[in-house]
Amino acid sequence: MKTSIEIDTKEVGKWVEWLATFGATKNGGVTRLLYDENWRLAQHSLLQKMNEMGLSSYFDGVGNLFGRLEGTLQEEKKILTGSHIDTVIDGGKYDGAYGIIASLVAVHYLNQHYGAPKKTIEVVSLCEEEGSRFPLAFWGSGSITGKYTKEDCKGLYDTRKNSFSHAMSSVGLQADSKPVKREDIDSFIEIHIEQGAVLEKEHKSIGIVSHIVGQRRFTVKVTGESNHAGTTPMPYRKDSILLAAECITYVINQVTEIDPQLVATVGKIEALPNVPNVIAKEVTFTLDVRHHQEEVLDYFCEKVFSYFKQKSIETGMDVEWEQWMDVQAVAMDDKLTKLAYRIVEEMDIPNRKMISGAGHDAQVFGTYCPTALLFVPSVGGISHSPKEHTDLEDLKRGILVLIELLHRLAY
Amino acid sequence: MKTSIEIDTKEVGKWVEWLATFGATKNGGVTRLLYDENWRLAQHSLLQKMNEMGLSSYFDGVGNLFGRLEGTLQEEKKILTGSHIDTVIDGGKYDGAYGIIASLVAVHYLNQHYGAPKKTIEVVSLCEEEGSRFPLAFWGSGSITGKYTKEDCKGLYDTRKNSFSHAMSSVGLQADSKPVKREDIDSFIEIHIEQGAVLEKEHKSIGIVSHIVGQRRFTVKVTGESNHAGTTPMPYRKDSILLAAECITYVINQVTEIDPQLVATVGKIEALPNVPNVIAKEVTFTLDVRHHQEEVLDYFCEKVFSYFKQKSIETGMDVEWEQWMDVQAVAMDDKLTKLAYRIVEEMDIPNRKMISGAGHDAQVFGTYCPTALLFVPSVGGISHSPKEHTDLEDLKRGILVLIELLHRLAY
Repeated sequence: MKTSIEIDTKEVGKWVEWLATFGATKNGGVTRLLYDENWRLAQHSLLQKMNEMGLSSYFDGVGNLFGRLEGTLQEEKKILTGSHIDTVIDGGKYDGAYGIIASLVAVHYLNQHYGAPKKTIEVVSLCEEEGSRFPLAFWGSGSITGKYTKEDCKGLYDTRKNSFSHAMSSVGLQADSKPVKREDIDSFIEIHIEQGAVLEKEHKSIGIVSHIVGQRRFTVKVTGESNHAGTTPMPYRKDSILLAAECITYVINQVTEIDPQLVATVGKIEALPNVPNVIAKEVTFTLDVRHHQEEVLDYFCEKVFSYFKQKSIETGMDVEWEQWMDVQAVAMDDKLTKLAYRIVEEMDIPNRKMISGAGHDAQVFGTYCPTALLFVPSVGGISHSPKEHTDLEDLKRGILVLIELLHRLAY
Repeated sequence: MKTSIEIDTKEVGKWVEWLATFGATKNGGVTRLLYDENWRLAQHSLLQKMNEMGLSSYFDGVGNLFGRLEGTLQEEKKILTGSHIDTVIDGGKYDGAYGIIASLVAVHYLNQHYGAPKKTIEVVSLCEEEGSRFPLAFWGSGSITGKYTKEDCKGLYDTRKNSFSHAMSSVGLQADSKPVKREDIDSFIEIHIEQGAVLEKEHKSIGIVSHIVGQRRFTVKVTGESNHAGTTPMPYRKDSILLAAECITYVINQVTEIDPQLVATVGKIEALPNVPNVIAKEVTFTLDVRHHQEEVLDYFCEKVFSYFKQKSIETGMDVEWEQWMDVQAVAMDDKLTKLAYRIVEEMDIPNRKMISGAGHDAQVFGTYCPTALLFVPSVGGISHSPKEHTDLEDLKRGILVLIELLHRLAY
């Protein structure tokens, strides 16, 4: 690795462990949900750290925390860098948290070594991304970019029947207290764990994301006829489990033929009445399909649905599908991505360009301002689990790249 | 139809409705479980009917009810005819009940028209067949034939935590009160609804059963790897739902190629963690396979399991299976079956020989004494449901055949 930047690897590890204390679970994971007590402690402790680092820190009206390193130019636009502070239930120490830590360490380094930048940089600890407390995801980035207003959280409750507004006020946030939508963002830089095993398998330390995939999710229902497993000869059967199995086999085996970047998953399946000696009347299964090009998704869906129709005609059974998610693919900024690639190549860090198959705050910013998303490897590809892990050396490499990138953009 | 026997069709319908009052459900079905109050009322009301018909009636030690029409010859061996009084939960009016009614009506007719037979005939209302209250099936026929002793019901409880012995004593039955195993049975004749749609689809009124199938049941477990549905490229996946789907498709599609009488059913499937956006780590499914020849079952199982092994090697996933049921096929008595066939042909009733895919008391008697099993059609093949139905004319035809068969055997 070629760079003159030096940061203390142990220090990075300490940061990770420190932030993971807020909401630490008995399994070694973290549960830090939007507006809960651990969330409040984490955000306020981060605010204190920002102040100690000489950043001017503040919350916006929904609880996004910003730490500003003021630029010398009187430009209105700010470079934003960070990630989200919330976790899934019993999640890992790195998802979101690493992006905040990396941004803080990077900005602190820049400030210490180069002083004030030309362009203002703000570190952001976004209040929410996961959607793990309320049925609403990307609340932090969505509020900053104006995708969400406070209207969108009205009538939402968590599983303990706490209303969204009650949860907000319990951490001292008042509806309409401060403006949330920002018009002064120049660009957004996020660094995040991969949550997949591609970098690890290919022995790369940095992933440079060109696109975040579009996602479509469906529920498919196959309706046959319930019948006695012993007294119904095979030709008389309308066996919904068999037809579902044929559909699943077809769907998944299509994927690799269509495009190597395409992924499709049937993760959930349920049969009725689900009894060993009764032919199942009904099977429902989910289909999750992702790619960064809408036309590939269109082609896949067309092919799959025409197979469903054909099988429905052949078997006399119903195959119905309902779409319940449609997230458009988002491209990262070409200039920022190229700059990141140049930096990583100059630093001689093993890297690859990649598509993000998971959703990130960067996808919300991506349609709003020039955005870059960088990945560091996830050991075993494991995420959303206490077992989530990234080697310290990789965490450090990510920060070095971020420092260099912010330096070139802001100084 | 050619016969001089005349029975009142309406009377048959009344019998069905009368017996269905004991345990009638709000859905129009029947719930009459071993030793429950409805069971007790039904058996005691049947005993009264038997007495009114001039049969000498009695219970054995487990609650099987017998109504004896004494023969004139001093032979020890008795012809037994009947079926079971218990039902599944919210079952139909015909399953079991029809066999008891048909036997009573037939024996009453014979007694009225021909007086005492040479051989003693006993109508039996078997106490239990379904296994729907306690985890034990064929308790009635199993006790008579010595397959079960009272040891076998020790330690059994129903879902309400009532012990088997407490349930017995609540209907006045005492352990070891009366001998149960019989050594004096000449033959057993059962008439039952088909519980399938073969007779109906082929416009037949009587099925003459040559064999009751053997049944093997397995649980198959496919173990892959749980992973993120977005960040895991297709080649890195160990998708247990996909492999399970391929196995199910293969298994079921093999069946018709192997033998037209073979049936196999995957009725139950469960995935873990069963979440739309997570590749499933584990899928379990059941496999129920039935045929009347052990060698066909052997061949099928060998083929299927070698496919599982091959796929396990190909994919690097585990496919394991565990057998939890192995019921041997039972042949009905050749002479009795031929006699029944001659009678049905002489009567000019549309009929077919068939294999029973469901279990019946006749299979327990079949390895113990010469046994015959006759079927009448089930409308729509529906059984174990309040919608269970057989047309009155078919119920009547079954009784006419039974009368003729008992006449030839006993007079």
